[in-house]
Amino acid sequence: MVDFNKVLDLHELHTGVLDIQADIDVKKPSDLAEAYTPGVAELSKLIQSDPEAKRKYTMSGKLVAVVTDGTAVLGLGNMGPAGGLPIVEGKALLYKELAGVDAVPIAVEQIGAEKIIETIKNISESFAGIHLEDISAPQCFEIEERLSKDLNIPVYHDDQTGTAIVVLAGLMNAAKLVNKKLEDLKIVINGVGAAGVATGRLFAEVGIKNVTLIDIEGKVNDKVKSYNRYQLELAKRFNQVAGTTLDEVIDGQDVFIGLSDAKVLTGTQVERMAKDAIIFALANPVPEILPEEALKHGAAVVATGSNQWPNQVNNVLVFPGLFKGLLSANVQHVDYKLQANIATAIADVIKNPDRNHIVPGVFDAGVVESVSKAVKDSAK
Amino acid sequence: MVDFNKVLDLHELHTGVLDIQADIDVKKPSDLAEAYTPGVAELSKLIQSDPEAKRKYTMSGKLVAVVTDGTAVLGLGNMGPAGGLPIVEGKALLYKELAGVDAVPIAVEQIGAEKIIETIKNISESFAGIHLEDISAPQCFEIEERLSKDLNIPVYHDDQTGTAIVVLAGLMNAAKLVNKKLEDLKIVINGVGAAGVATGRLFAEVGIKNVTLIDIEGKVNDKVKSYNRYQLELAKRFNQVAGTTLDEVIDGQDVFIGLSDAKVLTGTQVERMAKDAIIFALANPVPEILPEEALKHGAAVVATGSNQWPNQVNNVLVFPGLFKGLLSANVQHVDYKLQANIATAIADVIKNPDRNHIVPGVFDAGVVESVSKAVKDSAK
Repeated sequence: MVDFNKVLDLHELHTGVLDIQADIDVKKPSDLAEAYTPGVAELSKLIQSDPEAKRKYTMSGKLVAVVTDGTAVLGLGNMGPAGGLPIVEGKALLYKELAGVDAVPIAVEQIGAEKIIETIKNISESFAGIHLEDISAPQCFEIEERLSKDLNIPVYHDDQTGTAIVVLAGLMNAAKLVNKKLEDLKIVINGVGAAGVATGRLFAEVGIKNVTLIDIEGKVNDKVKSYNRYQLELAKRFNQVAGTTLDEVIDGQDVFIGLSDAKVLTGTQVERMAKDAIIFALANPVPEILPEEALKHGAAVVATGSNQWPNQVNNVLVFPGLFKGLLSANVQHVDYKLQANIATAIADVIKNPDRNHIVPGVFDAGVVESVSKAVKDSAK
Repeated sequence: MVDFNKVLDLHELHTGVLDIQADIDVKKPSDLAEAYTPGVAELSKLIQSDPEAKRKYTMSGKLVAVVTDGTAVLGLGNMGPAGGLPIVEGKALLYKELAGVDAVPIAVEQIGAEKIIETIKNISESFAGIHLEDISAPQCFEIEERLSKDLNIPVYHDDQTGTAIVVLAGLMNAAKLVNKKLEDLKIVINGVGAAGVATGRLFAEVGIKNVTLIDIEGKVNDKVKSYNRYQLELAKRFNQVAGTTLDEVIDGQDVFIGLSDAKVLTGTQVERMAKDAIIFALANPVPEILPEEALKHGAAVVATGSNQWPNQVNNVLVFPGLFKGLLSANVQHVDYKLQANIATAIADVIKNPDRNHIVPGVFDAGVVESVSKAVKDSAK
């Protein structure tokens, strides 16, 4: 349990958890001349004649903007842009503490995809990368897609890509444990929002064909009006099983990936899955099924989104090392090949996976370095 | 002289001159729970129910955005948003080094007043104040005015308000030196861009009536089509003298305020001014008249914008202490009364003004504290 009074004290002491630090002293006129005018006038002229100099000589060559509109904050829902700030500030803190990456929290008004894209583009010269956070689906897809295309700096939506990478990493080790081939797994993804769509896309890209997508209205298909084009396009890439509800499609499945709500999966349903079922019950704070319950009913491996149980699927495993690598190797796009390579790197941090160790812990040695190295190696 | 290679090395070493600093350690799961989830979930809920909590518990309660579109960079002209970055980054460095204020450099695209206003408003929840920098006139007037009105955080355009305050501070001491009453001074302002308009406005607010505004097209009046409404409205507040050109209006004037171009004022013109003329030749790097030349022709006091001569009129005297005070006293508007009080505070740092000491130096003891105290006292 967390002592909330301690949390408040901690966040109040310095008005937040981050500070700006001066890298050089300004104590005398000659410092001023070098750090400010007339020194910066020459630097300004250099940048005008050679845009690459901006990346080399200003903070914009290393600073990542962690941007939220607060529409989908953690499991809390729409908390407003201000309500989203503690989360993006926390992410910026993790960037610095875990990977030495400089990041600044930015809240953007809830003005819709088009204007959020425009706003971020308007200030993008200030940054070396854009980390999108807690932006609701489906607008998050368009924002991430368009910004990735239009900007020459990496754009990454943690709720999508971060989740997809860690899920794949965990699944790689889980499949090994139960002696099943990754590509042959029959998978149900329950919950097809930002994380579900991104996870499904990455599965498709690594050659997994048998995935069934279920969301609150039933199986994703074009007879259900509420599904958006992102969900429908994804569904077309898979051989979905017959049936409409989770209860109908669960029979004989190897894997349940829950990115949905508390307690939607029952022990009886786990029993109807294939032998050595793999359960990722990632709803937070209460998972789709409690690990002890899933194990009792025959699951071989269970992962959750919480650190209360073994195998926490946590995006913190990804983004610090990812941006450390992106910035150091000057990589501009987080494509699927890169995502798969990072997943492999995270899986490989665990030398001998067992049912309680399919993904590393956030503080395990080598996580950030492995991820960052995977990015650099992919760029070669 | 500044060694530009040294400047480049200095700005390259840390990729810019600023870093993000973590205020708390994240080394173990309990740190993560307090600094990130689930701690921040509670904070998010608190902010949603009490918007004031944002200011208290997140970086947005202390972080100033130093924003430029690069349209009017130093004396260089339009250098583009990227070309403006070294200057705003330098300003952010000075904030931290001189006053302990946290500030982040932001470059915004050159999209015109309306869209710059919209963009800044869209991300304003992230900040405790907006410092506008190197934005060209007349769009800077509208941007500053509208943002000040629409946002509940202080908005300050350094090229306008910073310059106006230091000019007034210097003029207060210069007037004392020559035993003339501030309100009675006959003043010519040569150059009526961002700084000229803001200085004229502040003069009007402190009761100075006899000001003549000259710009490149001659005296500001509604017969000249190129003057904008900001310049014309300002001119109407003064008793301007007869004549059209600087040469025609300079006779008998007590004060010349140059915010224009190199070498536009001659020694002969200084001779035609009133006895004990006060010359502020603030064009950079070459002033409107060299100080030695002005003094030779009878000027009593000369100030410039450069540290090569005594009496450097430098905005660095204002903004660090200003925002230190604004943030600590939770002041939302930099109104004219406050500007006048800050000018008095800066003038009063000099205990015994003489012709070589009408404004303090940037590194003089007490400048930041005096300015910051003036803000806090004004807020009472």
